[in-house]
Amino acid sequence: MLRLGHRPQRDKRVTTHVALVARAFGAKGIYIHGNDQKLAKKIEDVINVWGGKYFRIEMISNPKKLVNDWKATGGKVVHLTMYGINLPHVQEKLKELDKILVIVGAEKVEGWYYHMADFNVAISNQPHSEVASLALFLDRVYKGEELNIMFGDSKISVIPMERGKKVVRNDGQH
Amino acid sequence: MLRLGHRPQRDKRVTTHVALVARAFGAKGIYIHGNDQKLAKKIEDVINVWGGKYFRIEMISNPKKLVNDWKATGGKVVHLTMYGINLPHVQEKLKELDKILVIVGAEKVEGWYYHMADFNVAISNQPHSEVASLALFLDRVYKGEELNIMFGDSKISVIPMERGKKVVRNDGQH
Repeated sequence: MLRLGHRPQRDKRVTTHVALVARAFGAKGIYIHGNDQKLAKKIEDVINVWGGKYFRIEMISNPKKLVNDWKATGGKVVHLTMYGINLPHVQEKLKELDKILVIVGAEKVEGWYYHMADFNVAISNQPHSEVASLALFLDRVYKGEELNIMFGDSKISVIPMERGKKVVRNDGQH
Repeated sequence: MLRLGHRPQRDKRVTTHVALVARAFGAKGIYIHGNDQKLAKKIEDVINVWGGKYFRIEMISNPKKLVNDWKATGGKVVHLTMYGINLPHVQEKLKELDKILVIVGAEKVEGWYYHMADFNVAISNQPHSEVASLALFLDRVYKGEELNIMFGDSKISVIPMERGKKVVRNDGQH
């Protein structure tokens, strides 16, 4: 994941949602274009409790270099944008990709990224949310299995309930 | 849709995302528990340009009354919460429902809603985002068709492109 143009004050909550969806739905990590240590701490706190220590959060200042390096090492770049090709028309191709860098913007994204992306993918050609876009993209790539991800290193887990909340500590199991 | 506990300053961007996902993915409207005319205006501006005038935005102060009235007239209530039954285990049942009020909270949701909901549904039992949860819920209910929704009353439309942005005005067609 690459989150472009993060501004701490304006974007803290939406970028937090993006990062939490990335973790929960199976991404390996997130690069955040910006510098927001409070946000990094918040995600790390979630990871500490709910698991997923492999998930990497990195603040970066040069996202173009990241994209270039990613492509140079054989990775594919997918930019999520309402102006791209609608997901249903490309999802079969996307499933075949191996090492994907997914880009979502927090503001107007420069033309450079449209040009460099291997795929510009629309999660419907309507304006809505990069959080929803990322969720549906990962859903199609992981074929719905992202909803069943368990984190082996979690300290607590939810016991699903028809009504109410139940959480167990995993002390005994680790 | 019912968005609980909206606070204008803190939640404006996330609630905007919730409302835009609701519109884009086929919900009929959104009740927002709070009072934020600026947010309502923002969504109406999107509707004006991108279509969907049937989509209703209403600020409400008594969400419990709404839930009671909804149920009294035969509607079903689905509360999205990470503590509920995971979506893959209930999605077949959900597809059969007719008139659904989907509830997402902006903060801790009172036990009353867990009790009154016909279904407490988890979009994975991990912490992430109500925006992502709503998107995946609507995706399962509409079987992916939400990505192809066209709004007949839109002023402009995106022409999907592999690279770049293309938008056309629909003047000629209406």
